[in-house]
Amino acid sequence: MRVWMAVDSYLPAVAIGEVMRAGGLAEVIESRHAHFKKGDKIVGLTGFQDYVVIESQSKFPFQKVPTIPFVSDTLFLGVLGMTGITAYFGITEIAQPKKGETLVVSAAAGATGSVAGQIGKILGCRVVGIAGTDDKCAWLTGELGFDAAINYKHPDWKEKLAAATPNGIDIDYENVGGEIMDAVLNRMNLHGRVALCGLISAYTNETAGPVNLGLIIVKRLKVQGFLVLDYASRFTEAAMELGKWKMMGKLKDRQTVVDGLEKAPDAINMLFTGGNTGKLIVKV
Amino acid sequence: MRVWMAVDSYLPAVAIGEVMRAGGLAEVIESRHAHFKKGDKIVGLTGFQDYVVIESQSKFPFQKVPTIPFVSDTLFLGVLGMTGITAYFGITEIAQPKKGETLVVSAAAGATGSVAGQIGKILGCRVVGIAGTDDKCAWLTGELGFDAAINYKHPDWKEKLAAATPNGIDIDYENVGGEIMDAVLNRMNLHGRVALCGLISAYTNETAGPVNLGLIIVKRLKVQGFLVLDYASRFTEAAMELGKWKMMGKLKDRQTVVDGLEKAPDAINMLFTGGNTGKLIVKV
Repeated sequence: MRVWMAVDSYLPAVAIGEVMRAGGLAEVIESRHAHFKKGDKIVGLTGFQDYVVIESQSKFPFQKVPTIPFVSDTLFLGVLGMTGITAYFGITEIAQPKKGETLVVSAAAGATGSVAGQIGKILGCRVVGIAGTDDKCAWLTGELGFDAAINYKHPDWKEKLAAATPNGIDIDYENVGGEIMDAVLNRMNLHGRVALCGLISAYTNETAGPVNLGLIIVKRLKVQGFLVLDYASRFTEAAMELGKWKMMGKLKDRQTVVDGLEKAPDAINMLFTGGNTGKLIVKV
Repeated sequence: MRVWMAVDSYLPAVAIGEVMRAGGLAEVIESRHAHFKKGDKIVGLTGFQDYVVIESQSKFPFQKVPTIPFVSDTLFLGVLGMTGITAYFGITEIAQPKKGETLVVSAAAGATGSVAGQIGKILGCRVVGIAGTDDKCAWLTGELGFDAAINYKHPDWKEKLAAATPNGIDIDYENVGGEIMDAVLNRMNLHGRVALCGLISAYTNETAGPVNLGLIIVKRLKVQGFLVLDYASRFTEAAMELGKWKMMGKLKDRQTVVDGLEKAPDAINMLFTGGNTGKLIVKV
């Protein structure tokens, strides 16, 4: 969202005065569409608003949310939604971990990072998360099964990262950039891979830190950026695989829910201050 | 060499007082080795010195230079040596260009860039070079067959780069980093590749510029660092392929020769000020 506000990128910038673009879960209250009827739950780019009118020719089609016993609809915003599916393709297509490799995930307690790390565990990696509070770290190791979690606000966190990655780092699932990415690159093994998912430290200038690109040469790293939209034709595959893991108890999740459309700006800021754990949802 | 002076990296740092590490061409004046006899020309890590004693167990073995009519020995320092072989693997293994793609090479008039661009032409790319003088640019387009060459010291060079890459850029063969790399990334097409060969603008702090890493995500780029030493077992293959192209007249080269060991520091500085065209050689 921060990128969408700034400049035209992979989607045109959101203009001042326009409804802020956002993925959302909505209930159909009126429909002349053959496939969506009143009462259906749908997910897609609803934007931050009370009501949305969807054209049948929309470039980004909405998906009907299946009704599954004991499964909350909001899972289709998180683990089974864009953030979970991003982690799925980031790990399986970009990082391609091999059993026994060490995977480090930054912003590991976030909606995407928490799923990326758990998929890494499912695929047999040693997984180390980086997060910004001791509570988040305890959640990562206690509930999600991460092998270690490092609070980057501790002054000695880089030493702790080194201790937690005794065989170096093979894969960096990078959500943050700046100083955190730099510390991870410093621990990377030769021919390591960086799945570049986000750079939240660089979206505002205040906290952006430079990254030592020379390490990419010295360590012969492959740094690959990706966007979940490129895998649109495979979303169902991803959601089914994630759903299977969820039902098997291999994927845990948490949500941070902020109540009220008027709180949306505060909610977005929470992503920059580390205020949320797991998927951050604004309830309208 | 600049990296070797600073820190331990892929090779240990050169300590103050040690002979400066350097690839060189030398003549055997005395030998107890079965394969090297007096009068042989050899290439390898001679260091900057008048004489070198080579142990037979050297970690970086020396190669005998074949005697080929009309071929200067010093080609085995340039087009057929480490810088040419670097370009060969950077293009064929890392960039992997497809016919019709647009390849941009920075430091294009240097020993590696000039070969990288010419290999790009051989493989059917549109090739645009970036260099620091009009003379170098004229050499690139006039003699080497580049489709265009941009002098980055002209104030409107970014507009010229845009004009020279009407279909965007598919491959960045990057030797420089900083502002030049940033301008190239801005013109990259979706799913483009960066073969990260060098970052000379960042080896000293004075001129280092940050790179907009966000473009790697937005454009889903693959940025891959590499070192020629990783391909040691294939050097002969590369030298033979480069030699074939050289003999067919498809690879042109130029050398800048600085006379006298005492001029070695000035010679190294020429790489940072753009003083050389093609392979820079210090004659001892």
